[in-house]
Amino acid sequence: MSHATDNRPEALLAMDPGIADQLLADRHRARLAALTRTDPHFVAHDLADPSPAAAVALAGAEVLFTGWGATPLTAEVHAAGSVKHHITEACWERGIAVTSAAGANALPVAEFTLAAILFANKRVLYAAHLYRGLRTRHDWLRELAGSGNHRRTVGIVGASRIGRRVIELLRPFDLDVLLYDPYVDAVEAALLGVRPVELDELCAGSSVVSVHAPQLPETHHLIGAAQLSAMATGTTLINTARGSLIDEDALLPELRSGRLHAVLDVTEPELPPPLSPLYDLPNVLLTPHVAGSLGNELHRMADHALDELERFAAGLPFADPVHAGSLRRQA
Amino acid sequence: MSHATDNRPEALLAMDPGIADQLLADRHRARLAALTRTDPHFVAHDLADPSPAAAVALAGAEVLFTGWGATPLTAEVHAAGSVKHHITEACWERGIAVTSAAGANALPVAEFTLAAILFANKRVLYAAHLYRGLRTRHDWLRELAGSGNHRRTVGIVGASRIGRRVIELLRPFDLDVLLYDPYVDAVEAALLGVRPVELDELCAGSSVVSVHAPQLPETHHLIGAAQLSAMATGTTLINTARGSLIDEDALLPELRSGRLHAVLDVTEPELPPPLSPLYDLPNVLLTPHVAGSLGNELHRMADHALDELERFAAGLPFADPVHAGSLRRQA
Repeated sequence: MSHATDNRPEALLAMDPGIADQLLADRHRARLAALTRTDPHFVAHDLADPSPAAAVALAGAEVLFTGWGATPLTAEVHAAGSVKHHITEACWERGIAVTSAAGANALPVAEFTLAAILFANKRVLYAAHLYRGLRTRHDWLRELAGSGNHRRTVGIVGASRIGRRVIELLRPFDLDVLLYDPYVDAVEAALLGVRPVELDELCAGSSVVSVHAPQLPETHHLIGAAQLSAMATGTTLINTARGSLIDEDALLPELRSGRLHAVLDVTEPELPPPLSPLYDLPNVLLTPHVAGSLGNELHRMADHALDELERFAAGLPFADPVHAGSLRRQA
Repeated sequence: MSHATDNRPEALLAMDPGIADQLLADRHRARLAALTRTDPHFVAHDLADPSPAAAVALAGAEVLFTGWGATPLTAEVHAAGSVKHHITEACWERGIAVTSAAGANALPVAEFTLAAILFANKRVLYAAHLYRGLRTRHDWLRELAGSGNHRRTVGIVGASRIGRRVIELLRPFDLDVLLYDPYVDAVEAALLGVRPVELDELCAGSSVVSVHAPQLPETHHLIGAAQLSAMATGTTLINTARGSLIDEDALLPELRSGRLHAVLDVTEPELPPPLSPLYDLPNVLLTPHVAGSLGNELHRMADHALDELERFAAGLPFADPVHAGSLRRQA
């Protein structure tokens, strides 16, 4: 095909090259090569100080296909859960269309959360810990008398994409769902099948509280001392969002005493200090920020980004556009 | 109400009294008292050698409401996952109607299994273990490159009530399901949305293999050395059924080497010896037979049993009858 008749957009992969290797399977690179005039094996990393080859590619690019590790940008097709850190005001001023794979990335986080809820309500990991210590017969029905996934209440903090997917995934179970989200009204809550409540009521009335709010100045330490002390003894707090949403100084004594349980995929700082009790407490499941896309789940994000690229190449609007206004309220 | 006009059946609670305390909330005892001529606080335990009061109650009972810890019986309304050990040939010969709460007990087991599958495919507990050891930055995307819940295959061994519920619960996820069950034909498998395969093919093609078959002579060591060696490296084996279904002598070396992972809620013997590696291996989640009903999940079984009792008292057949023929093939 000659260049003159080639209407395919010029695109550039811009992300950490290590991420690109994991994000893009051979089938994705083949599809990228078919949809665009792109070298699917060329990945630009530091766009603020690009290599000569990257500078040439950048100058000609109509589409940037970005991912984790990308420097702040002016236009992109983004294959990661959050675009906020890469999109600048300049993007919106120039009328550049943005889409993200946040919807695809919401799925694994919600799935992690669902599993964490089901295990937390049954005290599965705590029972495994006790069993390891006891190694003898024990009255488990009595030990776990307060547990189970029947007629319990789960509190969802934030009707984000992830929060909404968790609510959807909870439908087959005998669990009631409370929602705290200042942007969701009673009608929308009813459509979601949840009961909208204030945050303190949610904390007081839920056996599991799961945080799915964005990191914003007004959500800093959203779950603080007051919310934690409102929780009943034995409540499990799940955080797959951002460490800053929880006041860890207030949480740690509640975990050390065993009054609360926690599943923490994110912390503040992101890596707890080596002597942090979070690593060792039997009532805490601490994971290294892995609830989001991993392994083949990255390929689902790439599929999503390529679907959007296909729409763009065909002159269609993005199916899942990111708008300047909504980005402010999102993760 | 005088005795002459009281058509309510005489019933007797027959189970371990400790179980009765956990199974029956006040609302259940009140409903039992309303439906039957029963002392809802009197629980018979050893019917083979009953107390004088129990012998009198037993002689008059039209309905036995039994649970874990009941001795073999001749007629019952049963509130536990399995009636097999209590029902004798005499029951069937006398034409006694039997029902069980196996359907209600299937729910928590399936929920435990679903959570275990989602965590296993993402290597969540293994990542937590590594994190606890490392306490430093680490390339988790690379470490967990083979993981995730997208386009993976789950193998279900046995379309029991629990196996079918697991299949149902797996529908919202991007997971294919293989089924091994010699009693399920291609049409039924298609209706279930699974691909029917032989056991060895299931073991070879699944990232998670979950066992939901009954304990029978022909299922003894159903998962043996051949099936285990057919599994790919990194496969997770889940057993919430009975320990005897898996050849543990063949499994242990596969777990010690780290080639396979396991979630074992049941083992053979039921309590592993104190030095068993199952307690300590980081690729094994060992739980003390708690996947079934616990806490408020026991109340769901009691609700189910009382629903059946209400039908019986109204002269209706059981909604969920147990038949002599089907019991042979069930747990």
